[in-house]
Amino acid sequence: MSQTYDPRRTAVLLVDPYNDFLSDGGKIWPRLKPVAQEVGLLEHLRSVIASARETGVQVMFVPHRRWEQGDYETWDHPNPTQRAIMERHSFARGTWGGEFHPDFRPRPGEVVVQEHWAQSGFANTDLDFQLKQHGITHVVLVGLLANTCIESTGRYAMELGYHVTLVRDATAAFVPEMMHAAHELNGPTYAHAITTTGELTAAFKGAHA
Amino acid sequence: MSQTYDPRRTAVLLVDPYNDFLSDGGKIWPRLKPVAQEVGLLEHLRSVIASARETGVQVMFVPHRRWEQGDYETWDHPNPTQRAIMERHSFARGTWGGEFHPDFRPRPGEVVVQEHWAQSGFANTDLDFQLKQHGITHVVLVGLLANTCIESTGRYAMELGYHVTLVRDATAAFVPEMMHAAHELNGPTYAHAITTTGELTAAFKGAHA
Amino acid sequence: MSQTYDPRRTAVLLVDPYNDFLSDGGKIWPRLKPVAQEVGLLEHLRSVIASARETGVQVMFVPHRRWEQGDYETWDHPNPTQRAIMERHSFARGTWGGEFHPDFRPRPGEVVVQEHWAQSGFANTDLDFQLKQHGITHVVLVGLLANTCIESTGRYAMELGYHVTLVRDATAAFVPEMMHAAHELNGPTYAHAITTTGELTAAFKGAHA
Amino acid sequence: MSQTYDPRRTAVLLVDPYNDFLSDGGKIWPRLKPVAQEVGLLEHLRSVIASARETGVQVMFVPHRRWEQGDYETWDHPNPTQRAIMERHSFARGTWGGEFHPDFRPRPGEVVVQEHWAQSGFANTDLDFQLKQHGITHVVLVGLLANTCIESTGRYAMELGYHVTLVRDATAAFVPEMMHAAHELNGPTYAHAITTTGELTAAFKGAHA
Repeated sequence: MSQTYDPRRTAVLLVDPYNDFLSDGGKIWPRLKPVAQEVGLLEHLRSVIASARETGVQVMFVPHRRWEQGDYETWDHPNPTQRAIMERHSFARGTWGGEFHPDFRPRPGEVVVQEHWAQSGFANTDLDFQLKQHGITHVVLVGLLANTCIESTGRYAMELGYHVTLVRDATAAFVPEMMHAAHELNGPTYAHAITTTGELTAAFKGAHA
Repeated sequence: MSQTYDPRRTAVLLVDPYNDFLSDGGKIWPRLKPVAQEVGLLEHLRSVIASARETGVQVMFVPHRRWEQGDYETWDHPNPTQRAIMERHSFARGTWGGEFHPDFRPRPGEVVVQEHWAQSGFANTDLDFQLKQHGITHVVLVGLLANTCIESTGRYAMELGYHVTLVRDATAAFVPEMMHAAHELNGPTYAHAITTTGELTAAFKGAHA
Repeated sequence: MSQTYDPRRTAVLLVDPYNDFLSDGGKIWPRLKPVAQEVGLLEHLRSVIASARETGVQVMFVPHRRWEQGDYETWDHPNPTQRAIMERHSFARGTWGGEFHPDFRPRPGEVVVQEHWAQSGFANTDLDFQLKQHGITHVVLVGLLANTCIESTGRYAMELGYHVTLVRDATAAFVPEMMHAAHELNGPTYAHAITTTGELTAAFKGAHA
Repeated sequence: MSQTYDPRRTAVLLVDPYNDFLSDGGKIWPRLKPVAQEVGLLEHLRSVIASARETGVQVMFVPHRRWEQGDYETWDHPNPTQRAIMERHSFARGTWGGEFHPDFRPRPGEVVVQEHWAQSGFANTDLDFQLKQHGITHVVLVGLLANTCIESTGRYAMELGYHVTLVRDATAAFVPEMMHAAHELNGPTYAHAITTTGELTAAFKGAHA
């Protein structure tokens, strides 16, 4: 990969690293697990985050709304995912499932943006503003799910003027064809780079050296 | 006032009703107090909120960021107000000053939108989204300050396509000429109606009757 | 389909109905043609637009940026599609390819929103504002391409608080698996309804009757 | 002024430099003329633009909607300024009044953003996107009017994360107290710098040297 990253201008956006998504016993982990294990998701997320921190690339946490009692009940038209969350209480606030996985917790000074209600980490949050106040022009998206929150956050990032990198093996989805759609069908139309953890961390290191 | 309000389409946006702004002992109350008492701010806020609740107009809370340790310190260029907040810790989270005034607390089912970092209740928050999911097309702005958060929220609301009403005596500012600027110089260029608490509550009642 | 549409609150968003996309001789038509013919794209677009106009549903035109000399040349990072457009000059302003297909031209009073630079008809345009000023809460997306501009416009519409309907046979894509991704993998996560032209026009008629 | 400007990161936003605003014979010039002459508006605009071009600071044109027949007629609630424009046809497309003043015309490669419907050059346009694609983090606002389009564009710029500079004598308003409100009452709450043409052009030159 010829893509390079200026660490002062780059942020890794870690999307929805909740126990419910990433940990044994999490509500949604069983649906992800086959693809996650196939791509080596946890290992690669650890590698991307460690590499970013070592090389001075900023890490920002982009969390989904933690479910609370009453959520969506007064809304005119919650979307299908939100209607499902009303049943299964994903990422419930105050519960273990709604905590970040122990390996993916913010360090002092790392930005945790406001929670997003749906798929895009930019929509109805302060993510664009925080990126600007931290001098970021290039975003690298990792976390979950490849074809929902990661893809919508990436599509928004491109529309907002950011340079967007997807990482094939630092995300997952419910079925392999969703990964294929995200990285082979849709990603190539909007993302500036689609890479792997190995290539990305080498590029971070190269920029840093 | 000939303006009418369909209660199913109207929301009162109550901006920043914190003890620090509205209560004896609040950090900023002394600076507001002369104008607030001159216009009858507290009495009129109570009247607007009570009237909205009685007539089925929705009340939404639009809170400023509650100050936390570390706020703004990593930002490239906090604005002058944010730099002042770094000194005086306005609306500090977990303190009495950062609680809503006891007369202005959300009831079950009332929407509290995400905290805004600066002046506009729409910027970097879910306010526009919440208004849409609740069917709102007309917003009535009350709270503080007339020429900062109320004005920026109103300017944004107009740009976003909402019908905007300002209420002269249900807001305040540090000096009378700021009130004059908000209601006589700038408001008439963007707001669809500029009214008083008496006229507004009569209109709410009329629509409801 | 049980979904109903209030014609005063519904708009059909017709995305990118250019000769380059839809007409024999258009620059991109050959890549679309197999899927377009398979689903009956042109016939169904005609049917949706005619039905909307008959039943009082608003039609809004959501056009892609017409290419002009110099486009993207000073940008820091055009996306892959924009880099392709720099080569092939899709929808060039002042040319036949950049005109709307003769069957899909705005009538007096129909809104033509500002041109979008990338995929989402909302991004960097007045679409959200125009929808609000016309009282629209429900949008129906037709036009091109299913997995790029239609999908990004739909994802944005949901995030902005609109009710979103996709129409399987009033859109097209370069290959069938992109249609599958749009309507079977991704659409069901964010869209409130995924329907067909036949069901949609029946629902329009029902609401109108 | 201690403020410095990196020319690669700074843009001068020239707002609404129409003949109707700036030229003898323009529809709105008579209302501006006293304040404009008092501050030396035309001379200072020329000086700011010339200095930016000499020192490599980008100039972007931020134009108001040029009035067209039918404008606002189908809208639910045009704002008071838009209702006035329906009468007086300010900046009418295809007329001299809707052309840029001859001294303020874009040079090849300078960005002209989409027209704004109301006051903020960011609202419903591609201004934020264009700034990002050109690497801009600092904006300097000049043009008209101080308390409407300049102020709303400045308030938006701050909320969007930009560093904002106002220039007291490179703008104007209908009456002096509107200038006072813009620069003494409101500007100091949101703008990062409030300066004069002389100080600004010295800072541009200093950064360039």
